[in-house]
Amino acid sequence: MYKMASITLITGGSRSGKSFFAQRLAEEIGGSRLFLATCPVTDEEMAERIRRHIIDRQAGGWETVEEQIEIADRLSAAGGYRVVLVDCLSLWVNNCMYEAHLRAEAMDEDRISEKTVDLVATARNHPGDVIFVTNEVGMGIVPDNSHARLYRDLLGRCNQHVAAASDSVYLVSCGIPLQIKGNDDAL
Amino acid sequence: MYKMASITLITGGSRSGKSFFAQRLAEEIGGSRLFLATCPVTDEEMAERIRRHIIDRQAGGWETVEEQIEIADRLSAAGGYRVVLVDCLSLWVNNCMYEAHLRAEAMDEDRISEKTVDLVATARNHPGDVIFVTNEVGMGIVPDNSHARLYRDLLGRCNQHVAAASDSVYLVSCGIPLQIKGNDDAL
Amino acid sequence: MYKMASITLITGGSRSGKSFFAQRLAEEIGGSRLFLATCPVTDEEMAERIRRHIIDRQAGGWETVEEQIEIADRLSAAGGYRVVLVDCLSLWVNNCMYEAHLRAEAMDEDRISEKTVDLVATARNHPGDVIFVTNEVGMGIVPDNSHARLYRDLLGRCNQHVAAASDSVYLVSCGIPLQIKGNDDAL
Repeated sequence: MYKMASITLITGGSRSGKSFFAQRLAEEIGGSRLFLATCPVTDEEMAERIRRHIIDRQAGGWETVEEQIEIADRLSAAGGYRVVLVDCLSLWVNNCMYEAHLRAEAMDEDRISEKTVDLVATARNHPGDVIFVTNEVGMGIVPDNSHARLYRDLLGRCNQHVAAASDSVYLVSCGIPLQIKGNDDAL
Repeated sequence: MYKMASITLITGGSRSGKSFFAQRLAEEIGGSRLFLATCPVTDEEMAERIRRHIIDRQAGGWETVEEQIEIADRLSAAGGYRVVLVDCLSLWVNNCMYEAHLRAEAMDEDRISEKTVDLVATARNHPGDVIFVTNEVGMGIVPDNSHARLYRDLLGRCNQHVAAASDSVYLVSCGIPLQIKGNDDAL
Repeated sequence: MYKMASITLITGGSRSGKSFFAQRLAEEIGGSRLFLATCPVTDEEMAERIRRHIIDRQAGGWETVEEQIEIADRLSAAGGYRVVLVDCLSLWVNNCMYEAHLRAEAMDEDRISEKTVDLVATARNHPGDVIFVTNEVGMGIVPDNSHARLYRDLLGRCNQHVAAASDSVYLVSCGIPLQIKGNDDAL
């Protein structure tokens, strides 16, 4: 049912169980697995939480690499792993937006599209499976804050590119994954 | 198609028609039905609206009991009803969070998980069907407000526990219910 | 698979690809097509973007009419078109709310229901297909702002009326359309 060398996108709201589902999916594939964590370390409490997550995942056979921006490079260097799980694109887009701000560079839908198209090409070249986790953030009221509006647009654009290139896409709500692309085998 | 003594979770956005669908589902089951309302009475206008809703439901054969916090106790005492509809978990989690604040007690994901696991065990012991209504609140932008962020996490955790224990889960959008768990019979 | 003279509703979050999907759907039907745009022109930048969109659509065989409020009238006058695409109901509800505010008229769920029921009746009388695009805005945290809360309620109510009258309803996430109503033929 699960194809070799496939790309999967898992989206959902916050605390929807999407990361848990992504890890279970990767563990079902079996073989060596890399967790590519995009979460920025903002303070000591966060650093401590991240350390505990790394140790928890080791028990499940995972190695972890942390990278906030250059995830295509890390994915490119991870050819030896049967599965790479990127968790998550929503923080990656946030990090890219923040980095562009620090460097006084422009960040818009064209720029994030370019970066995402690169990422997707790298994922296609990965000899094993790649699973991306992202967030659905566009189903609330339009935010007052213009940065939040830009972020919503950037992430929406990124998610569309990755979903178009994915063999399977899941929308998770209340911990229940709903396959919205690639479920032909299931019928 | 509808199993005896099943647990159902109905989620969706605000004004998505989830409560209407829940009531229709309960009425299709038939038999005696109890509406367990968790809505806090915040002012006289609200009290008046609640009174009208109670009368409206009476016309549809419903009895109503109002309880903001101890819904497991009320469910436990409702063994005589063929169907109990709990509307809604999203206000219950809100009420639990507010009560903990008033009592200067901690409220976190572990605490709400504990309370939800209790609630689910009680639902399983109910001789008839139990239908829970909740809200999907995690698909917007991360709120600025730290209370809102905690609430999102608590409700997400609660929803995952209830969905895991449910025979059927529905996601409602635009008044259309989409069964995301337990629709094997339908295929 | 696609019925003559059908009504379709397409919902989703912001930047979910719902408008793109709606246009593709209309183009697959073929024949003459009208784009009924409800977007208010707020400044010169917006006016310029709208002009570019109109030209882009002309290349795809579309004519465009702009109307912020009286979309039922425009739909009624568009009987000659094989397909009319209304993009979008979310801005229409916003425009109706704003107009009521300017005129110091009441706007509530009953009022928007009345206007939506009129619109739906007009869509049913259209000899060809009508496709409505809307937004899912109710899956985030309850907004602090009372106007935003009212807007959420009005749009939720509008979406329910249109979905009930539609032959097909799609929920779009990450550019992937999920048919939540009317997919019986597909099984």
